[in-house]
Amino acid sequence: METRLEREHYLRAADVDIKGEWMPSAVFLRMQELAEDNASNVGFGRIFLGETLGLCWVLTRVNLKMHRYPRLGDTIHVATWPLKPTKLTFLRHFMIRDAQGETLGVASSHWMLFDIHERVLRRTSTIGDYPYDPDAPVVLEEPGKIKLPPDMPLCETRNVRYSDVDMNGHMNNTKYLNWICELFSSEHIKTKRISQIRLNYIAEPYLDQQVALYKSQGDGGFYICGKTEDKTIFDSFVTWEPI
Amino acid sequence: METRLEREHYLRAADVDIKGEWMPSAVFLRMQELAEDNASNVGFGRIFLGETLGLCWVLTRVNLKMHRYPRLGDTIHVATWPLKPTKLTFLRHFMIRDAQGETLGVASSHWMLFDIHERVLRRTSTIGDYPYDPDAPVVLEEPGKIKLPPDMPLCETRNVRYSDVDMNGHMNNTKYLNWICELFSSEHIKTKRISQIRLNYIAEPYLDQQVALYKSQGDGGFYICGKTEDKTIFDSFVTWEPI
Repeated sequence: METRLEREHYLRAADVDIKGEWMPSAVFLRMQELAEDNASNVGFGRIFLGETLGLCWVLTRVNLKMHRYPRLGDTIHVATWPLKPTKLTFLRHFMIRDAQGETLGVASSHWMLFDIHERVLRRTSTIGDYPYDPDAPVVLEEPGKIKLPPDMPLCETRNVRYSDVDMNGHMNNTKYLNWICELFSSEHIKTKRISQIRLNYIAEPYLDQQVALYKSQGDGGFYICGKTEDKTIFDSFVTWEPI
Repeated sequence: METRLEREHYLRAADVDIKGEWMPSAVFLRMQELAEDNASNVGFGRIFLGETLGLCWVLTRVNLKMHRYPRLGDTIHVATWPLKPTKLTFLRHFMIRDAQGETLGVASSHWMLFDIHERVLRRTSTIGDYPYDPDAPVVLEEPGKIKLPPDMPLCETRNVRYSDVDMNGHMNNTKYLNWICELFSSEHIKTKRISQIRLNYIAEPYLDQQVALYKSQGDGGFYICGKTEDKTIFDSFVTWEPI
């Protein structure tokens, strides 16, 4: 069984930012769609899981390292494959290459199975043996817990709006990347690009909820986290490099 | 020469809203990408126009009428074709159908040629005879000027942010649809859908500019417009129907 999925993607105007480079939120979107299709190809797609087993995939952690960003009009190749799951976590890696096969970026990610009716996480063994290739490459360290510094200053408070949410009324995973980028000045965003981002999804805010965003510099990058009144929504650590 | 372009499109999670229906901003994005490819197929694509003639396409007006919205997982067909241009305006119509060929929506749009170096609009004849099929169907009335009511109340002021702009630093055309939808309450957006929208693009705001959004009910719908300190950005008229 083919456990790896690779797809070509042509970067259009909507995929790039003011620098003409692939937007981090668009990178995340491409990875998630590919992950969904890869799971579907081995029999564990969204529709089967939801309708037959009452389960859904939940993306919990991502670690993305970009060596170079492709630009408007570039054709790229994105590949994904699962590694051996742990008791609770499915591991999935990604490789992004340009048309000449040169590596542009790599990512690792963690996924869990959520029981839609009981509202609890399920063990990976719930769906039997998830197929993976034991020889598939490990391209980046796994995304771990992010230890935030104490007393992070509040940077901005945002409402979860219509265009931020998906069909479940939850904030869409890819939109956090825009919120993170928008905590930085336009001058910063025009002259720097994200070289690495670790993003851990902890709880999902709903339409109309307020999320307070905190940012603190340290360890060569920025710690960023989002909180509602009573819950942590996400933790993140981002490093930037000059363009 | 084939002057019509039709493409199949599968609706994914990122294409739909909280109702599970195709998002208006995603409809506009699909139409614009198809228009760009259709122009490219007849020799007047973005790259040729920009690099050879120093011109670019500017979308100035859209009239979209949706009979029914496709949902997550639906496969749809979007087609576009040009009609006979006027002295200053290229006319382009769209037809959106479901997998069974039933019409979901229709649209008309106006495009102009902008001289990038001289910063002026050019006549359509600047690029010679733009190919079109004189027998191509007219599927909706052309988008006309929108006569706004006097004294529209200010509804909200928004900043143009990183994820709103394209490579030129202008607000992306499709993002206005989100701004328009987000002027309505979540209760409204969950129980109604846009049956028709006319949207006239007048000037482009830049990254970090503030846009004041005005909304006024009348004539069976809502008039909405956006203004910076000294310029009108867009005028719009939107009608909604219960789901």
